[in-house]
Amino acid sequence: MRWDHVWIDINIATMDSEISSAYGAIHQGAIAVKDNKIVWLGAQNDLPQFDALSTPVYRGKGKWVTPGLIDAHTHLVFAGNRANEFEMRLQGASYEDIARAGGGIISTVNACREADEASLFDSARKRLNALAKEGVTTVEIKSGYGLETASELKLLRVARELGKHHHVDVQTTFLGAHAIPAQYQNQADAYIDHVINDMLPQVVAENLADAVDVFCEGIAFNLEQSERVLVAAKQAGLKIKLHSEQLSNIGGTVMAANLGAKSVDHIEYLDEAGVQAMSLNGTCAVLLPGAFYFLRETQLPPIALLRQYNVPMVVASDFNPGSSPICSTQLMLNMACTLFKLTPEEALQGVTVNAAKALGIEDSVGVLKVGMAADFCLWDINTPAELAYSYGVNPCQQVVKAGKLIQQ
Amino acid sequence: MRWDHVWIDINIATMDSEISSAYGAIHQGAIAVKDNKIVWLGAQNDLPQFDALSTPVYRGKGKWVTPGLIDAHTHLVFAGNRANEFEMRLQGASYEDIARAGGGIISTVNACREADEASLFDSARKRLNALAKEGVTTVEIKSGYGLETASELKLLRVARELGKHHHVDVQTTFLGAHAIPAQYQNQADAYIDHVINDMLPQVVAENLADAVDVFCEGIAFNLEQSERVLVAAKQAGLKIKLHSEQLSNIGGTVMAANLGAKSVDHIEYLDEAGVQAMSLNGTCAVLLPGAFYFLRETQLPPIALLRQYNVPMVVASDFNPGSSPICSTQLMLNMACTLFKLTPEEALQGVTVNAAKALGIEDSVGVLKVGMAADFCLWDINTPAELAYSYGVNPCQQVVKAGKLIQQ
Ligand SMILES: [Zn+2]
Ligand SMILES: [Zn+2]
Repeated sequence: MRWDHVWIDINIATMDSEISSAYGAIHQGAIAVKDNKIVWLGAQNDLPQFDALSTPVYRGKGKWVTPGLIDAHTHLVFAGNRANEFEMRLQGASYEDIARAGGGIISTVNACREADEASLFDSARKRLNALAKEGVTTVEIKSGYGLETASELKLLRVARELGKHHHVDVQTTFLGAHAIPAQYQNQADAYIDHVINDMLPQVVAENLADAVDVFCEGIAFNLEQSERVLVAAKQAGLKIKLHSEQLSNIGGTVMAANLGAKSVDHIEYLDEAGVQAMSLNGTCAVLLPGAFYFLRETQLPPIALLRQYNVPMVVASDFNPGSSPICSTQLMLNMACTLFKLTPEEALQGVTVNAAKALGIEDSVGVLKVGMAADFCLWDINTPAELAYSYGVNPCQQVVKAGKLIQQ
Repeated sequence: MRWDHVWIDINIATMDSEISSAYGAIHQGAIAVKDNKIVWLGAQNDLPQFDALSTPVYRGKGKWVTPGLIDAHTHLVFAGNRANEFEMRLQGASYEDIARAGGGIISTVNACREADEASLFDSARKRLNALAKEGVTTVEIKSGYGLETASELKLLRVARELGKHHHVDVQTTFLGAHAIPAQYQNQADAYIDHVINDMLPQVVAENLADAVDVFCEGIAFNLEQSERVLVAAKQAGLKIKLHSEQLSNIGGTVMAANLGAKSVDHIEYLDEAGVQAMSLNGTCAVLLPGAFYFLRETQLPPIALLRQYNVPMVVASDFNPGSSPICSTQLMLNMACTLFKLTPEEALQGVTVNAAKALGIEDSVGVLKVGMAADFCLWDINTPAELAYSYGVNPCQQVVKAGKLIQQ
């Protein structure tokens, strides 16, 4: 055998459901990598003979390897920050005061419209570096702070560029229907026409998006408007997903699941019919404990129902300047367990195998087995549960992305 | 003027209450350092002539300088971890199941008794490095996982050694009365005798502790037992503090404040009489949002009363393996605002000026002014509120400890 790299003396949390142990664990395992893929994986005792003189061999000292982490829901390309608004609110300012002072999503939209690509790239790269240090190897990034054609395209271009210049893979999502911009106030339908007829074709023509998302909610777009966008996106050959049931149960999940959405995200207020629709259609539930924490929400997503109907649960940061300014995928593992009572194994599935499903990339990443991309992390931990249990001392010792050992 | 270092083009959050602006801010300021102290601080326009050829001058590019952060309540020297217990609980195990499996504080006590100083030092240093990267320059560390003389002394020795070998200053606290050890079950009074008559004299003789703390609670030590320890500690010349009113209001705070305690910590259940006693005696309130978060508590500490009576509010991590496994002082700023509704300025006071008061070291650290230790951080932020608002992309650019620029 001629391989590029071999890891031995490791425990492997494959996250492969075909291996019946918790975490799909293989104890005292080994992994061989060639080109950018896993070409051998199993018990070290079964490792075939290989050219040990010309192959770098890494010894894990009995520590754990997991798939590279996948953050399946972020808004990490943006300009400005909302610290002033945060401070004003804690000083007792009303929402009207904050709006008068230029706060709210509109402040991020204005900052994004004004920012050039270089500065957007720069700030986003810092954020992506922070996630990368935590073991993230794939991240989804949404637009949605442009709300006009040129700015939406600009945000998506920056996200695409990030993916080209960083070892972390970037999956992009067009979220033109994130909020109703000021120039379309009380004309949500007209804005939706604009999204579908003007923005979407250009997004497709430049191949700027892997998926399309809509914020379906009383304060954003209604069911029919959301459906129009998703149908158009599907016809354009893009994957679809939805922000829905965060503040109320308005039926977005059922609609999106029936259209074949890869995921519905937030879903605090989802009912059993909605969970059933997700289950029937293979739609993932993206849980966002950072936003739940930051907004001091109290309505928990329907975890028991999601378990009962075997809906894949995803855990993501929702990192954004308004409702989840916490740029940490690792911390979300702890928050998913602490706030949503997921088990550590469910939390880890949420940033690996299930996150890959939510992005429609489960054929190449999210699970460690032969034929999959060699995206994995070596962690200084004695049990996989430690990843969710504690936070602050980063246990990430090595990151391997597409077969390359990343030096950070 | 001959100085060692000069910082210019900075905004300074001095945290000095004698400067009336928010955060005691000086815009467009400068700081000069000689030996280990601040020898000049003010508006850059007023900076005296100095020997610019032989003095390193750092330009802050309009970013902010704050005092080095102080984490006034941690338990960061310990062995073992409680990930298995965390996982069992989320899998539905009862407290009895967990106790039978060797979980709970007793597992940490057993691990600490078995561990040698070198391994305790090693794991604690990793944790201290994580805090140091966040801009922490002083940390308090408690014992309390030995619960027998040799092990309590061992933990305190490791904490003292850490302080000697790390640029972060370590303040140590003897917490022998943290829990009733198995060998003293139903003999809490006898254990308190042991703490006072056997442990404390050796702690004093070896100069291992700056302060003494007790866990005063229904599940730990009662009011009278707690008071005996604090009186003995005071007679021995040590500063005193108390863990109290976390789960119920049993009067520990009033007792400790009347004895002159530097701080009472947790205090979720404290009433107005307790707050008044703190105010009268200059006792600080140490708020621990990490434990509040991790334990999913709902009873908020009496923030409005603490404000009304001008009790200095401190924010600390309580980092420990059982109830707050989050090793991050920066994250506590966000949690203090998000969970306890502190303003960003109050949160920052809680890890600077007020944290210094809680440790009785306010004459040298916690505020930036002439004569104080040159302990400060340069942050890549545009307003001090950003330190509390967002988390994950570490904005700490430079740390200066006792006049030395620390390379991390
Ligand atoms: Zn979102
Ligand atoms: Zn504590």
